[in-house]
Amino acid sequence: MSGPGEFTILARDGQARRASLVTAHGVIQTPAFMPVGTVGSVKSVCPRDLKDAGTQILLGNTYHLYLRPGDELVARRGGLHKFMGWDGPILTDSGGFQVFSLQDIRRISEEGVEFRSHIDGSKHFFSPEKVVSIQRNLGSDIMMVLDECVAFGADREYTARSLELTTRWARRCREAYPQGSGDQLLFGITQGGFHLDLREKSLAQLAEIPFDGFAIGGLSVGESTAEMYAILRHIAPMLPADKPRYLMGVGTPMDILTGIEAGVDMFDCVLPTRNARNGTLFTSQGKVNIKRAEYREDDGPLDPACRCYACTHFSRAYLRHLYVSRELLSYRLNTIHNLTFFLDLAAQAREAVEQGRLGELKARYSAVYPAGRE
Amino acid sequence: MSGPGEFTILARDGQARRASLVTAHGVIQTPAFMPVGTVGSVKSVCPRDLKDAGTQILLGNTYHLYLRPGDELVARRGGLHKFMGWDGPILTDSGGFQVFSLQDIRRISEEGVEFRSHIDGSKHFFSPEKVVSIQRNLGSDIMMVLDECVAFGADREYTARSLELTTRWARRCREAYPQGSGDQLLFGITQGGFHLDLREKSLAQLAEIPFDGFAIGGLSVGESTAEMYAILRHIAPMLPADKPRYLMGVGTPMDILTGIEAGVDMFDCVLPTRNARNGTLFTSQGKVNIKRAEYREDDGPLDPACRCYACTHFSRAYLRHLYVSRELLSYRLNTIHNLTFFLDLAAQAREAVEQGRLGELKARYSAVYPAGRE
Repeated sequence: MSGPGEFTILARDGQARRASLVTAHGVIQTPAFMPVGTVGSVKSVCPRDLKDAGTQILLGNTYHLYLRPGDELVARRGGLHKFMGWDGPILTDSGGFQVFSLQDIRRISEEGVEFRSHIDGSKHFFSPEKVVSIQRNLGSDIMMVLDECVAFGADREYTARSLELTTRWARRCREAYPQGSGDQLLFGITQGGFHLDLREKSLAQLAEIPFDGFAIGGLSVGESTAEMYAILRHIAPMLPADKPRYLMGVGTPMDILTGIEAGVDMFDCVLPTRNARNGTLFTSQGKVNIKRAEYREDDGPLDPACRCYACTHFSRAYLRHLYVSRELLSYRLNTIHNLTFFLDLAAQAREAVEQGRLGELKARYSAVYPAGRE
Repeated sequence: MSGPGEFTILARDGQARRASLVTAHGVIQTPAFMPVGTVGSVKSVCPRDLKDAGTQILLGNTYHLYLRPGDELVARRGGLHKFMGWDGPILTDSGGFQVFSLQDIRRISEEGVEFRSHIDGSKHFFSPEKVVSIQRNLGSDIMMVLDECVAFGADREYTARSLELTTRWARRCREAYPQGSGDQLLFGITQGGFHLDLREKSLAQLAEIPFDGFAIGGLSVGESTAEMYAILRHIAPMLPADKPRYLMGVGTPMDILTGIEAGVDMFDCVLPTRNARNGTLFTSQGKVNIKRAEYREDDGPLDPACRCYACTHFSRAYLRHLYVSRELLSYRLNTIHNLTFFLDLAAQAREAVEQGRLGELKARYSAVYPAGRE
């Protein structure tokens, strides 16, 4: 196999993999972190900022783009890459997670899920076929199947029924876009809540469908770190070894390193970008809450170890002033920094796996970023 | 005379001048437009964006910087240039205009003006000496004297008394910082409301004080365009010919060209930056309200004639989408564009004066930007 979908493992360190994935818009070096560009932009930054930060691949949100500006409008513009001026790879989620977050305003059936827009309350329907069609319109390099993300605390019976539905929906997605029918890749999503046997069952069913990659969904939904890592460590190594593995919506630096250690190749999370806008910054010395008074007169860089535009041009005192004054530049500088931190973390992990030193890297980070929920 | 303050007229076209002004942080080519960086940043853009747009000199607001982060804190950081990462020239206003905008919460006396902070209601006092001291702390290249900006509609008697106060305050500012005592320049501000004879009187008094430049204050405060241009055309050519002339807080493209024609060298205005954040964009074809439905599917650049990052990388459809979705990137791209438009307008005016074609340039712009208030 060559061309989009080609996945080559270049090095291993325990279960961790250092690999490359070919997409229609370029090769992704994994493990990779994907910044989240919800509505066609990563909030506050431009494509040039993203490249400077080391972004290889962006995530776009199907639910948001479907509602605004609309996938058909994006298709008429030549697709999401052209529309937003990003020429690298893009992964789009299926909208499933957003829809399932709209707890009170959606209804699930065999056919799909009906929901109301968070913008204007209008009624919409996502079927497996529909979310493939939307992602075809967006023209993403990697599409995700529609899945049901089960709430934390759902009972075993519900979770068991739900994973079967997710499997049937996954099959319908693949049928709507058979393998080899285009340059876009399609990833399946395993569910199963917090029951190891149900996780295994979901995976076994999904693995029979010819997907280009496999994701772990339904984590980071309210469980403890211990519960999450138990599932992650059990199931990640069982995902098909010859395909990319993607842990959805996760997480903290320690979550990411734990995922990599368990054999995950791809990650996305709003943590760096959302925290940036809240003034919480990730540095090599730990988290910095930039609004704290102690930084009022701090002339040092935010992180002396960081290569980003914010750290090489401005002081903590200035970043604090911008944040406290609610200046728009604050959001951008903070975002550039946090993204650089997460992207550099992934780059360091790639190097560490090549050198068989992932454990060392993780030990180093765990000293400043102990495991725990945000 | 050489060094800061050196002002050389390089070409003339009628009363218009093409000149250069030496400051401690570089030479300014005039006519020049100064973007406004209220609280130590030009809202939404970084120093690199400002340089790319062609910014020669920034304006900082003394009132805002005094309140937050505080001029003494800025001084301890090495001054405003270092604090905000801008190595080019900076002009600071005196805070007078902002204080006089706080109509109900300030009290004027011979000594100065007492006012309450718009942030926390705390009481403060600006004297002529105080605003010089603040601007010394900020380390701006050009400082402005404290003046009383008279409201539009003030009666003749009040205006006449006020201009005398402005003169006395101007003298006290110069005495607090005698010419030649440092690298910072100090400009006087003429007032006199909308009475030509009072304008002349103010100017005659100010011209006797050895300032490094002279400003026209008190315009664009609610008067009609005709009233403003009448004052501008009468008084600008009477300002000392061998010093830079600065029209404060003005204005539209046609205001700027009219000012240049009358012999003004420097301008500042929040119009390009504030309008950018409201989605009103200045193009070679006239103003564009980017939220209009007609741009939903418009794949063309905002302004095909523009060299800015927004125009060379994104479509009107994308800019509209960002604006309608309230994405933070919208503010920055719009600001980059509008600043580039105003800075290029000034650059074109410089070239036109050199070539004796300012009238032509003005005629061309007046077809798309007729005179009139915003």
